Amino acid sequence: MTKLDVVLDRIDADLDASVARWFDLLRVPSISTDPAYATDCVRAADWLVSQLTDMGFEASRRDTPGHPMVIARNHAAGDDAPHVLFYGHYDVQPVDPVELWETPPFEPEIRVVNGVRQVFARGAADDKGQLLTFLEACRAFMSEHGQLPLRITMLFEGEEESGSPSLDAFLKANAGELRADFALVCDTNMYDAATPAIDTMLRGMVYEEVVVTAARRDLHSGLYGGAAQNPIRVLSKILAGLHDDDGRITLPGFYDGVSELAPDIAASWDALNFDADAFLGAVGLSQPAGESGYPALQQIWSRPSCDVNGIIGGYTGAGAKTVIASKASAKVSFRLVGEQDPKAIQAAFRAYVKSRLPVDCSVEFTGYGNDRAFSLARDMPEIVKAQQALTDEWPKQAVLMGMGGSIPIVGEFKRVLDMDTLLIGFGLDDDSIHSPNEKYNLTSFHKGIRSWARVMEALAK
Amino acid sequence: MTKLDVVLDRIDADLDASVARWFDLLRVPSISTDPAYATDCVRAADWLVSQLTDMGFEASRRDTPGHPMVIARNHAAGDDAPHVLFYGHYDVQPVDPVELWETPPFEPEIRVVNGVRQVFARGAADDKGQLLTFLEACRAFMSEHGQLPLRITMLFEGEEESGSPSLDAFLKANAGELRADFALVCDTNMYDAATPAIDTMLRGMVYEEVVVTAARRDLHSGLYGGAAQNPIRVLSKILAGLHDDDGRITLPGFYDGVSELAPDIAASWDALNFDADAFLGAVGLSQPAGESGYPALQQIWSRPSCDVNGIIGGYTGAGAKTVIASKASAKVSFRLVGEQDPKAIQAAFRAYVKSRLPVDCSVEFTGYGNDRAFSLARDMPEIVKAQQALTDEWPKQAVLMGMGGSIPIVGEFKRVLDMDTLLIGFGLDDDSIHSPNEKYNLTSFHKGIRSWARVMEALAK
Repeated sequence: MTKLDVVLDRIDADLDASVARWFDLLRVPSISTDPAYATDCVRAADWLVSQLTDMGFEASRRDTPGHPMVIARNHAAGDDAPHVLFYGHYDVQPVDPVELWETPPFEPEIRVVNGVRQVFARGAADDKGQLLTFLEACRAFMSEHGQLPLRITMLFEGEEESGSPSLDAFLKANAGELRADFALVCDTNMYDAATPAIDTMLRGMVYEEVVVTAARRDLHSGLYGGAAQNPIRVLSKILAGLHDDDGRITLPGFYDGVSELAPDIAASWDALNFDADAFLGAVGLSQPAGESGYPALQQIWSRPSCDVNGIIGGYTGAGAKTVIASKASAKVSFRLVGEQDPKAIQAAFRAYVKSRLPVDCSVEFTGYGNDRAFSLARDMPEIVKAQQALTDEWPKQAVLMGMGGSIPIVGEFKRVLDMDTLLIGFGLDDDSIHSPNEKYNLTSFHKGIRSWARVMEALAK
Repeated sequence: MTKLDVVLDRIDADLDASVARWFDLLRVPSISTDPAYATDCVRAADWLVSQLTDMGFEASRRDTPGHPMVIARNHAAGDDAPHVLFYGHYDVQPVDPVELWETPPFEPEIRVVNGVRQVFARGAADDKGQLLTFLEACRAFMSEHGQLPLRITMLFEGEEESGSPSLDAFLKANAGELRADFALVCDTNMYDAATPAIDTMLRGMVYEEVVVTAARRDLHSGLYGGAAQNPIRVLSKILAGLHDDDGRITLPGFYDGVSELAPDIAASWDALNFDADAFLGAVGLSQPAGESGYPALQQIWSRPSCDVNGIIGGYTGAGAKTVIASKASAKVSFRLVGEQDPKAIQAAFRAYVKSRLPVDCSVEFTGYGNDRAFSLARDMPEIVKAQQALTDEWPKQAVLMGMGGSIPIVGEFKRVLDMDTLLIGFGLDDDSIHSPNEKYNLTSFHKGIRSWARVMEALAK
């Protein structure tokens, strides 16, 4: 048996214990965006410190102005081994609408759905299940061989789901400790349940909250209706104007820095035979609703987009209330690609809203994120090694893909620590991350752990 | 001293006790639109029965499929006295946003604001304060003279703020008991704090809730953004299209049955020297936002309007969440005038929404009200008598005015019981009905009671 085979056997033998640890972490409601859960975020950080210390890492909680970070490192590997920084986040999304969950979001449960064993809980995939695949692979290596094949520093954040307000300063203050040859992040999806993937393109993001105010108090629509400005109507009109009839975003300069996809990448994506009908059909949709003239895969991977993520104003309870609200608000996000400049787009959005604001209305903005898009050279040596290691574990060859989501840390690592990042994850499109009934397949977890063992071994060569 | 003077003195002497009774009723949170307050609605009805019985009325609670009605009648007046039906509603609007209340909405409090004594509570004006002005006038008459100058039947409803679902059937089933020569309703405003008013025009209403559904579950905007239909964007676009750039409503046929104001009424309204700047300025607005080409008074009294009364979809908590919601919903109401047909407008609205619905979206509607507009001949004898009685009580001459709100009962009385309705009320535009910090001036209450004593006496002649 090779050194790796021993580790893979250990992973298989310890699976039940690994799942039990996963459940422990899932029971902590570490919702970072809601201050009510601040102590739970600390609990989740402390749990990681405790686990990593038990495994033989030197680990500590590092407090920040927001939720704490966790840093850990091993001492066993030789100084000539590559040095990687593994990053994950222990915080999770809010759970609303909570009434749509079939089981309580912080009471993880294994259920068999269509013959597949799945673990249901908030964070089951994003990112607790994913980050633990790496930790458990390290645990198996350490327990069998007493050391890891790589020099590894780990960084766990508790504010990924709320815009990472403390991250930039933390990376700068701890750059010496965190800088490595490159970074590994486990927060992405496979191409499909049989096909592992490395993400080489990520979209960036601008996220804005906009509050429109008209009258200084709520008004009775009988007394004022027809004469008073209605902020919901104003906001609806502003939001409706963000797209033209072809699904293009109307902000001046929005497409500056957006290029058409390079022919070689376009060809490799075509070879994926992406099934847009199945992708959309799984959530009850039938047609790509984005920019005319682009296939669905480009709409979600390589084209910018704009979504209203939330809106509220006036009376939203049961029944009828004849009110003209004083305020209405919306959360609006833009997904960016190529060289789009987040600051310029934020400014263009704010200018657009102000320019459409009628008399007697005022507006306030809050920014929740400004991140550039990211891409890697597809022939980077680490990518080639990791691709082969993943292919060895799964039924199909690992593919290089794009991803529509934003992982701001990747840009931060490049900018602050001058490191590239390999994005390898075992999530699936139907994991319902950020939605009710989030899940992670037991296969993702188990073969994810095995995959990391293989990838670590491959990267050490 | 005249018989009336004795009653007016009694009213003045008993004011503190009248206020105490008012406070008792205000402490009952009889919010009809929220099922959580159903037992409080019954309590408010029982309180009225008890008070009316004590005063010598034959009063009873009448249960309905919704909240109960209260009916009362006196036996003392002679058979040749005019017979009137007095109507009020004991239910109140919801209190949200409750954090904007300076004192708890169901703990009434007298505060002096700019030298004026005001009672703050949900329902202080609408309609508990207003309906009690009539009850307390009756009480004073009965206690001084043992009988009233009119034959009076009273009807109190508990579902006025939630679309009066039980009213129509109840009026039909009890038509014999309720039919009178005409009706009196105290649920309207004075022209200003010195000028009493009788409303001779009311707008009608169509109130619709619309829910747009796209994907069958909430989606992550990173994974799906750009390809998935967003119901908030769809709904915003639909709502934005309801008005054209001149503030006119775009539904086909919407203006059928809308006439320009008759010259004599337009002249009498001009004579009111309505101060649009002050009316809007009091709530922080400066310009009438409605249909171009119509003065503000016509915009709120004699022109139809459309308002979005509420909207909600996606993530509305603190911070950011990158979700594409499955559903978005809005509450939309139309104020109607002249001969506009509510059913036709409801149908036009629903057809308009459906016609703008993109592929992969579905819509559901719930109707919360369908009421025609109403108007009375300005030379009706009862109007002339009441106008003089009000002029006798207040600093300025009583005026005949329009009102932008809808009081569905007025149309019901006409349709089911073939009765006209005199709308006399003592509210003021700054009472914040339907808003936080609702109030009713102590002067409205006190002189309102005195006004009803005068009006009853005048109508008996």
